[in-house]
Amino acid sequence: MLSLKHISINSFNENIIYLHKDCEAYKVDEISNMTKVEVHGGVTPIFGFLEIIEDDGILATNELGLNNEAFKLINLPEGADVSLTIAPQPPSIPFIKRKMLGNILSETEYVAIINDISNHRYSNIDTAAFLIATGSFMTAPETLSLTQSLVGNKVFHWDNENIVVDHHCLGGIPGNKTDIIITAIIAAYGMPILKTASRSITSCAGVADTFSVLANVDLDEQKIRQLIENERGVIVDYNTLPLVSACKMLSSIERTLGISQQHNIVSEILAIKLASGVTNLVLDIPVGPTSRIKSIENAVQIRKLVEYIGDMLSLKIDAVITDGSEPIGYGVGAVLEARDVMKVLRNRDDAPQDLREKSLFLAGRILEFDPKLRGGQGYLVAKEILQSGRALEAINRIIYNQGKAPQARLGNLTREITATRSGIVDSINNQRITHLGILAGAGQYPGAGFDLLKKVGDSVSAGEPLYIIHSTNSNDFAMANSAIDSDNGYEIK
Amino acid sequence: MLSLKHISINSFNENIIYLHKDCEAYKVDEISNMTKVEVHGGVTPIFGFLEIIEDDGILATNELGLNNEAFKLINLPEGADVSLTIAPQPPSIPFIKRKMLGNILSETEYVAIINDISNHRYSNIDTAAFLIATGSFMTAPETLSLTQSLVGNKVFHWDNENIVVDHHCLGGIPGNKTDIIITAIIAAYGMPILKTASRSITSCAGVADTFSVLANVDLDEQKIRQLIENERGVIVDYNTLPLVSACKMLSSIERTLGISQQHNIVSEILAIKLASGVTNLVLDIPVGPTSRIKSIENAVQIRKLVEYIGDMLSLKIDAVITDGSEPIGYGVGAVLEARDVMKVLRNRDDAPQDLREKSLFLAGRILEFDPKLRGGQGYLVAKEILQSGRALEAINRIIYNQGKAPQARLGNLTREITATRSGIVDSINNQRITHLGILAGAGQYPGAGFDLLKKVGDSVSAGEPLYIIHSTNSNDFAMANSAIDSDNGYEIK
Repeated sequence: MLSLKHISINSFNENIIYLHKDCEAYKVDEISNMTKVEVHGGVTPIFGFLEIIEDDGILATNELGLNNEAFKLINLPEGADVSLTIAPQPPSIPFIKRKMLGNILSETEYVAIINDISNHRYSNIDTAAFLIATGSFMTAPETLSLTQSLVGNKVFHWDNENIVVDHHCLGGIPGNKTDIIITAIIAAYGMPILKTASRSITSCAGVADTFSVLANVDLDEQKIRQLIENERGVIVDYNTLPLVSACKMLSSIERTLGISQQHNIVSEILAIKLASGVTNLVLDIPVGPTSRIKSIENAVQIRKLVEYIGDMLSLKIDAVITDGSEPIGYGVGAVLEARDVMKVLRNRDDAPQDLREKSLFLAGRILEFDPKLRGGQGYLVAKEILQSGRALEAINRIIYNQGKAPQARLGNLTREITATRSGIVDSINNQRITHLGILAGAGQYPGAGFDLLKKVGDSVSAGEPLYIIHSTNSNDFAMANSAIDSDNGYEIK
Repeated sequence: MLSLKHISINSFNENIIYLHKDCEAYKVDEISNMTKVEVHGGVTPIFGFLEIIEDDGILATNELGLNNEAFKLINLPEGADVSLTIAPQPPSIPFIKRKMLGNILSETEYVAIINDISNHRYSNIDTAAFLIATGSFMTAPETLSLTQSLVGNKVFHWDNENIVVDHHCLGGIPGNKTDIIITAIIAAYGMPILKTASRSITSCAGVADTFSVLANVDLDEQKIRQLIENERGVIVDYNTLPLVSACKMLSSIERTLGISQQHNIVSEILAIKLASGVTNLVLDIPVGPTSRIKSIENAVQIRKLVEYIGDMLSLKIDAVITDGSEPIGYGVGAVLEARDVMKVLRNRDDAPQDLREKSLFLAGRILEFDPKLRGGQGYLVAKEILQSGRALEAINRIIYNQGKAPQARLGNLTREITATRSGIVDSINNQRITHLGILAGAGQYPGAGFDLLKKVGDSVSAGEPLYIIHSTNSNDFAMANSAIDSDNGYEIK
């Protein structure tokens, strides 16, 4: 038996178990490899990786240390008696090996894997193995099984609502923050919209990043219910909800690996919607040569896949294939995107028209879920709500009730990126802009990003600025500038 | 700038960079995800994952902490000025994504990946992604590229030798420790044999584990050269050599994931042999229904693959397909396997005959590499060397010169596993025995394992013992016993 000690180290999602190198209870010197262990003493064992501390000042030889993550899970006071064993392999690991060899896994096998992940039996390495093994090939029934498994047991029910809607975009287009405008319009109409947003995984800003510039997005269930009941709309970072714990772990590893694989992402998005009790979803699938989804054929495949999963799990999905050929709006990065969104909601003359039109189109599709609405009227109703200022009022009430965010500042390291020749902007490479934006610090710092001054079709003279880069620290700024100098993402013809 | 501090934590292969949560130089509170960072100040930047310490007693707000791994790499004294940046994605990560999508990677791409791994630019998660992405499908030229990349720049040269031989088994058969007997015979013959052995990855004991029961296997280059020159044989844990650093990282992750993928394992084995300067290799490919390689077709595929790689890289390979239908010898686990090996070398009557015969057969194949030997005489010469006691003398000299190991004790928690019915042992399941042995503590503790009393074809009465389990701690013992009670790995008919 060892005495429990909390070593207050935050390891971002991995449980670490610390032993002293001269531990009184276990022969630590015989261990030479990364070792998964199980700590006993609490209600259920805690799984984690063993690390060895050689400093008596940090851990004594009769103590067992847990980092923040593991200490929270074990739910015991410091000084409690704990013991340790080598962890057996999680029972579902062999299924991953079967998948690696090209097998089709059963629903039972997906349930077992996701169960092990939810119960913290997988290390980050195991979870990475699962993502990569499933990323290259999954059948539609497998994607269905994964989605169902990810939903889990904890689900929000909306007994007082006939319909709860949401909108989600499959991503890959910088600046594409229609969601906040859509939420404002739908809430103003009176249809309950529960926008579960996420932080950036491989983009410059997720919807949760952008809206957190305006409002608090870390809400509990009670707050969400209040907002839906009183304001008919809410935008919440799904990571803060007591739902889909395995989804959160998967996306944490996706973020670390910098990958977003179609079938996995589809499962994760739909699981979040299902767990939050959404009944009707508009899914935006943007297609373009430099978007995540590059061909109409691929987009149609995804549309069919989500329609199939939606039908099987009673989620009504309207999957809409849209133009993803260039960034949407002018801002890329949370602060600049929030500025664009507010310009549209305020009906400002300098609001980006592409962002406005796309938001109206998608909001219109959502409004068409209302059986009382005359067919084909969705877009016009959405436009009327926006123009009348009711959408702005709605978002202001939502922001007020979620809690206004402290003023976020735009990065003050700036540089104008100028055209090297005169002509017409022929294309803007979404992937390149995303890559450069991340180098500039977007995804990490809300104030970092780009302000695009020219879009496709605009004429430009040599030396005229194409966009302005904003960074919050000099290292990001230097890295982004050096990459921009080799390829700034613009093609001028 | 922050002041460098060594936090003496051993994380087994991952570099960890610690900042205080109120760090004076970096806004730590804006970081919510696992973040790869780069520490500057040494000759080259150190890559690692960021962890946040909340305890002033461990790290001050003006300090940056490095764990053992990272502190060793940065090669600076405590108190040195260091700074930190967010690490850019390693340049080769996009190649892994290409592989995940089914592409064939070029040699340049493999070189870039292995370079990034060797230079500690990959996290363990990235390395896992690479292993899984390549594990399901690699062409022969890709396996060649991977092998070449793994060899790297540092290679042993044996200018005074015309030939340096080695033997390796692809594994999957419990107890199969022919290597030590083969080394003794070949060394006694006078042919230089450099046995690069490894620790267990998915087995109960690697050759390095078993030989470390008898001798020190942690040798430097000078010692190896002395042994080859004077004793004509050496058995070294390749992990202790300044060679193939990327191989070591791959196998560390393979061990953690519990996977061993054919193409990866082949590349790693051949890279180790090439880097250690081996010219001629006998590769044992055991086939059986419960071995790693289950069909002759698969074994022939592997034989052709290694012949192709050997021909391209000037390593002469004699790939031998052998019977892998049941465990070899009686002992499973390092201490018990070492006992079997010494019984064979001592020509004891109770030595396991299958281990003896297989060792003679394979040693004979190696001896046939000698152009002076009359064709077909290898086996007979090997047998003569063993029977005469010269092999025993050779191994004793090798053990003496490598340094005798302290007496390792057999686990004293024991139980006889008995037959539930009378009959003939029809089969022994290699995979089940391996699984049960690992539960019993083998792989982790040299003294744990099984002593097999009955082999296939033996007759047995109900209640008669089939094998004895040995564990060194009660938890392993309980786990193994409970698993044995549901399936002890023996089929009696």
